[in-house]
Amino acid sequence: MDRVAPDPAPVGTLPVALDAMGGDNAPGEIVAGAVQAVRERGVPVVLVGQPRLLYETLAAHDATSEIPIVRAEEALSMDEGALASLRRPRSSIAVACHLLKRGDASAVVSAGSTAGVVATGKLRLRGQQGVGRPAIAVTLPTLPTPTVLLDAGANADAKPEMLVQFAHLGVAFAQVALDLPRPRVGLLTIGSEAGKGNKLVKRAHELLSATPGVDFVGNVEGHDLLTGRADIVVTDGFTGNVALKTLEGSIKYAFGQFRETIDESAVARLGGVLQRPRLRRLYRRLDPEATGGAVLLGLNGTVVIAHGSSRAAGIASACELAARLAAGEIVTHIGERIASIPRSHRLW
Amino acid sequence: MDRVAPDPAPVGTLPVALDAMGGDNAPGEIVAGAVQAVRERGVPVVLVGQPRLLYETLAAHDATSEIPIVRAEEALSMDEGALASLRRPRSSIAVACHLLKRGDASAVVSAGSTAGVVATGKLRLRGQQGVGRPAIAVTLPTLPTPTVLLDAGANADAKPEMLVQFAHLGVAFAQVALDLPRPRVGLLTIGSEAGKGNKLVKRAHELLSATPGVDFVGNVEGHDLLTGRADIVVTDGFTGNVALKTLEGSIKYAFGQFRETIDESAVARLGGVLQRPRLRRLYRRLDPEATGGAVLLGLNGTVVIAHGSSRAAGIASACELAARLAAGEIVTHIGERIASIPRSHRLW
Repeated sequence: MDRVAPDPAPVGTLPVALDAMGGDNAPGEIVAGAVQAVRERGVPVVLVGQPRLLYETLAAHDATSEIPIVRAEEALSMDEGALASLRRPRSSIAVACHLLKRGDASAVVSAGSTAGVVATGKLRLRGQQGVGRPAIAVTLPTLPTPTVLLDAGANADAKPEMLVQFAHLGVAFAQVALDLPRPRVGLLTIGSEAGKGNKLVKRAHELLSATPGVDFVGNVEGHDLLTGRADIVVTDGFTGNVALKTLEGSIKYAFGQFRETIDESAVARLGGVLQRPRLRRLYRRLDPEATGGAVLLGLNGTVVIAHGSSRAAGIASACELAARLAAGEIVTHIGERIASIPRSHRLW
Repeated sequence: MDRVAPDPAPVGTLPVALDAMGGDNAPGEIVAGAVQAVRERGVPVVLVGQPRLLYETLAAHDATSEIPIVRAEEALSMDEGALASLRRPRSSIAVACHLLKRGDASAVVSAGSTAGVVATGKLRLRGQQGVGRPAIAVTLPTLPTPTVLLDAGANADAKPEMLVQFAHLGVAFAQVALDLPRPRVGLLTIGSEAGKGNKLVKRAHELLSATPGVDFVGNVEGHDLLTGRADIVVTDGFTGNVALKTLEGSIKYAFGQFRETIDESAVARLGGVLQRPRLRRLYRRLDPEATGGAVLLGLNGTVVIAHGSSRAAGIASACELAARLAAGEIVTHIGERIASIPRSHRLW
């Protein structure tokens, strides 16, 4: 791996390893995001990918002396899934994980295919001691504080004990990333009373009710994801992914309908013009990219998966989130929580 | 059962049996909805519930001679679940089902608790020949034509073969209720390629691909529920219920945010005023009540479950939907489809 430029980060601050080849808009927007992260947010970044391409792109930003490049000649394409991570041991995401593992980066950020990033992360970084199944956590734009949903897609078939682990992962995440000292944990199901749901949820409800160190507030339903009834909502990766995509799609749909309604007539359009700056701000806040993306929790290292369609600002947010999680020692935090689980409650 | 008023329906048109005691706003809004259904939509209705209370409420609408009442002294409360249907054989919903069964009503409508209505319907009307598990179908406000989602909550734990049955139920529903001659069927999962999903979905994908009479278009994801990629989306009742409530909650949230944005300042408020009539129309269209509610498919009779919070207009829509399904002989239609399933594909 050739260092094309010297590391500009302050002594003692490890850079975030950014997969420059992953995502629908790679490498242009990824590099632009790195530049934003470094210049506007003070987050040191190292770019991983094809050196010549990245050097030229950095040069267009006049940033070749600010951001180092680490060579990775291969890349996973957006439609490649989990198996590709085995076929391509020198892909940009694999090299980024390697940097993290050997202590040359604080965290990894990629906008590549979720399946590819998850598989590569698990393969290269391995799960933390005692964590059976890493999970994907996403942050929803609930007010006044965001709601964390997990698992959002890493484990399509889950066991009840895994949902208890997800609760621990989510609590650690909310404490470090959202500054919530005692986050409330809810279980996603189809009725508010205990005993409502499928077999998985019924058993998970029993286990969570008996889990020390988790402030379990009981069942929550789909409509509670944005009402703040719980700070953390745990579910299996299948249900979580369907719920997340339904939520994103519904907000997008509602916005499209509003916009169309506003644009329908001259009078209404005038009204729309008067509100444009406000609406734009609202739209930005609800944009899934704004939160920096999904976090793969439970590995020996912090991995942030930015939206595949991320543009520069989304990438910069993802780098900032990754740096914050690494600085907050999320991995150690999770390790301590997992170690505190009574042996009788452990699956692994 | 005492008939308090004579049946006003034209000869040969059976009334819809409306559970007047079910729902958050029973019986006031239910009775008002019955009056709307009869007067504005030409749908004959018979009210089932406490005669004196209903007679007085009808009298306030000057409608005692238009709408008959059938006595049921008991009612399921909104927080009573499936078991209550066994404890209360003479509840308003049970009596409504009885009217349907003995041929005195064309369909049943209730805004009572979903669990209670499903349990009572299954107990009193029984599943159709060959239908192992009745399912709840809901209509989403997709443009240009609605999307049908099922199962939306009747079967929390499903088998792959059940999803194939749901596809048949959904096709029959879309043909009768939405006038779609050849509806496209999608399978709700967490990736667009075949093979993505949990074990249930992977097997269901294989079965649906080999199902004659179903135009299977493959996997759809949560964000496709409102894009029209499929006319019918099949899933298990757990995932379907979470997706439905997430969708409703997200649209409501987006609307709330939108309204707040508009109301934030005088200038913006002026813009809002200019758009008010349009926004109100949009809001009404996206209101879950507008579609008339969920339909319990696969029983020996048509049962429509209106939203628990339904007001008069929602109840009238539900009665209209029930009458349309009954007139379209949805039960016969489903029976024919189920009978056409090759024996090797049947579970029951």
